[in-house]
Amino acid sequence: MRVSRSFLPVLKESPSDAQIVSHKLMLQAGLVRQTAAGIYAWLPIGYRVLRKIEQIVREEQDRAGAGELLMPTLQSADLWRQSGRYDAYGPEMLRITDRHKREMLYGPTNEEMITAIFRDDVKSYRDLPRTLYHIQWKFRDEVRPRFGVMRGREFLMKDAYSFDLDEAGARLSYYTQMLAYLRTFKRLGIQAVPMKAASGPIGGDLSHEFIVLAPTGESEVFYDAAFEEFDWARDSLDYSDEAGLHGLFEQVSTTYAATDETHDEARWADVPQDRRRTGRGIEVGHIFYFGEKYSSSMGLKVSGADGGMVVPHMGSYGIGVSRLVGAIIEASHDDNGIVWPEAVAPWKVGLVTMRGDDAASIAAADDLYARLNAAGVETLYDDRDERGGVKLGSMDLIGLPWQVIIGPRGLAAGNVELKNRRTGEKLELPIDAVVGHLTA
Amino acid sequence: MRVSRSFLPVLKESPSDAQIVSHKLMLQAGLVRQTAAGIYAWLPIGYRVLRKIEQIVREEQDRAGAGELLMPTLQSADLWRQSGRYDAYGPEMLRITDRHKREMLYGPTNEEMITAIFRDDVKSYRDLPRTLYHIQWKFRDEVRPRFGVMRGREFLMKDAYSFDLDEAGARLSYYTQMLAYLRTFKRLGIQAVPMKAASGPIGGDLSHEFIVLAPTGESEVFYDAAFEEFDWARDSLDYSDEAGLHGLFEQVSTTYAATDETHDEARWADVPQDRRRTGRGIEVGHIFYFGEKYSSSMGLKVSGADGGMVVPHMGSYGIGVSRLVGAIIEASHDDNGIVWPEAVAPWKVGLVTMRGDDAASIAAADDLYARLNAAGVETLYDDRDERGGVKLGSMDLIGLPWQVIIGPRGLAAGNVELKNRRTGEKLELPIDAVVGHLTA
Repeated sequence: MRVSRSFLPVLKESPSDAQIVSHKLMLQAGLVRQTAAGIYAWLPIGYRVLRKIEQIVREEQDRAGAGELLMPTLQSADLWRQSGRYDAYGPEMLRITDRHKREMLYGPTNEEMITAIFRDDVKSYRDLPRTLYHIQWKFRDEVRPRFGVMRGREFLMKDAYSFDLDEAGARLSYYTQMLAYLRTFKRLGIQAVPMKAASGPIGGDLSHEFIVLAPTGESEVFYDAAFEEFDWARDSLDYSDEAGLHGLFEQVSTTYAATDETHDEARWADVPQDRRRTGRGIEVGHIFYFGEKYSSSMGLKVSGADGGMVVPHMGSYGIGVSRLVGAIIEASHDDNGIVWPEAVAPWKVGLVTMRGDDAASIAAADDLYARLNAAGVETLYDDRDERGGVKLGSMDLIGLPWQVIIGPRGLAAGNVELKNRRTGEKLELPIDAVVGHLTA
Repeated sequence: MRVSRSFLPVLKESPSDAQIVSHKLMLQAGLVRQTAAGIYAWLPIGYRVLRKIEQIVREEQDRAGAGELLMPTLQSADLWRQSGRYDAYGPEMLRITDRHKREMLYGPTNEEMITAIFRDDVKSYRDLPRTLYHIQWKFRDEVRPRFGVMRGREFLMKDAYSFDLDEAGARLSYYTQMLAYLRTFKRLGIQAVPMKAASGPIGGDLSHEFIVLAPTGESEVFYDAAFEEFDWARDSLDYSDEAGLHGLFEQVSTTYAATDETHDEARWADVPQDRRRTGRGIEVGHIFYFGEKYSSSMGLKVSGADGGMVVPHMGSYGIGVSRLVGAIIEASHDDNGIVWPEAVAPWKVGLVTMRGDDAASIAAADDLYARLNAAGVETLYDDRDERGGVKLGSMDLIGLPWQVIIGPRGLAAGNVELKNRRTGEKLELPIDAVVGHLTA
């Protein structure tokens, strides 16, 4: 992508109205713009990151055997009356009346709708178990939206729903999603710790939050250092390995981790002093097992193997996709700007000419840009006739993993500079070696 | 994808409440389910098609130099007051009041929001021209939603917006999008004819609709057979070739095509009798040039090259992405079900065992399924223990381009049957030749 043809509005000053660093950086680097309280437009850089996160979430859901569909944003109030939640939900539900005076709402979550869809088409035990998910915009009318996309009103969520014939099956679906979450966060380049949680308005009695550590986190967290040391997302574990999934859950359950909401001083005292980790955390995922709560209230039942009727056990599994953009920045930035993990970086490489008015530099950059594109290396090319220092400052702010810097002096010797954004390390190398170096 | 692990509810009977063939087939083949009047959930097959169409639209927008972003679904009423459209829009606009009594709406289109975003960040003529687009859900509160996703209330639209310094530049942006549309529809496997149109509530004086022929279309259309004969989307034309773009527009403008709304009997009489085509058509795209309408009312201006202020000229360009699913089915089906153009088919191949209880058939199908996946051939594998005839009927209904049918008799000789869904042609070939045949 050429900067001269894109829409990448970088602000000179750090915006003073943003309270947390991720929000400041998202505004300054031109990832988002607020269009109403708690509602954001995703500009090209921000939307690229959002889509990369979404795709990793999707791939790990697919790998875990979940099927993707898409439910609409607006729902009928009647659907929520079937579960009893329409009156119970409170003012965070955005209620809408259409032109025919029908009561609608903007979905804050989809337990009711997926239960109704499943109920209307699935009649036999042979069609279970199933886990279905979608990645769709939700709305919660927060009384005081803040922290940018971390606590917005319109937000993108992945929500999955599992249907099983009994509790044992439902627990296995729960463990499967737990592993999928550990793998998803690992691929995103962040450390997310599963912590036993209260179920809240979803209901049920088995629930974990996935928490990313960040100084600006909303809750205090306590966990055993084992969560930093062990490869919880281990690739060797197959989803068809039931004993392995049980073992993973057992291990997660017996290793201490809790938010202030569920913190247990007695169990905490058992964690050796040098293994205790505390800090603040941001919730980026939440999983629930709630048994027959919705299937029973909404009349979902299927014929069983023995001819009787069975009420399926369900769970739901959320990941805050848009919130993750902010959470990743909270966990990965420095004084100069964002430092993207490579998996979610909007582009891998930023290409900069120090002198945008130097014909030799432009020709060399144009040629290298073409070769990087041909090699499939995602590149943002700052081809503007702008001072080199301004362009380098923007690149640091935007935070791509690598910068290729072309200056007249080095170019005269056939060289360019390659900078690693995270470490700051710089390397001078022949311009013809750049593509090889970045694809090695 | 294995049918036994997915959610592909196929109905035995054609639904009686659907009035047009695409709606019937989308319900029967399990592409969508209605969740409220004019609002649909996209089940796995339907969502795969929707995403394929979306991706082709995206690639052609990117290729035409448009930049992608994502604007939110909900907008502030104040934004629409700036253009004067809040009061003018009428009951199709879904108006919403939030918990703080602020007036909001579910966006039916985004001229106001993109103008405000551009206005707040772009200050100089050097940042023009630009075309920005997003693919986002919209809502129009149709008084009588019908025909399934063809005239739903919540629908997915690609809308692009161009910003230029003058009318000449804006016309070039308009011609660029016109070519991008011709290429998009060609890749989607459908014939869409650009027809001069009235601008309606968007405003402005230059506008074309893109119409797909279908007997159930909403308007009568009249066009010169040249639109069927000529390669309007010709690949040889580069977007940087201004003369070529002007020439394309000239050719489109002088070749007769009109809906009943703009039909001109005098010009029609000039079309030779044997070249006159009439029929019914569905609108799948609509492009507008409206000059300074929004930039002027919303205070968008940039500094010009000579230091004075310039009010940009704008255009907007819509494609009905979700409607296209229905339109493609209207244009491509037979008595047995859907016949997908390969570019948008949910999978390329359907793999069927005639005897789901025959161990040799299962082993051969499992192996072939693994080999097709390894070769990157998207395959739907009906691995259920169901009667062969039922499975073949479902496959015809779902309409994948190819079927690979494994029966015990052929298998004994090492052979399987390959069926072309569109032509019905069947070929018996060695099972080891299938992957090669489908990737040739």
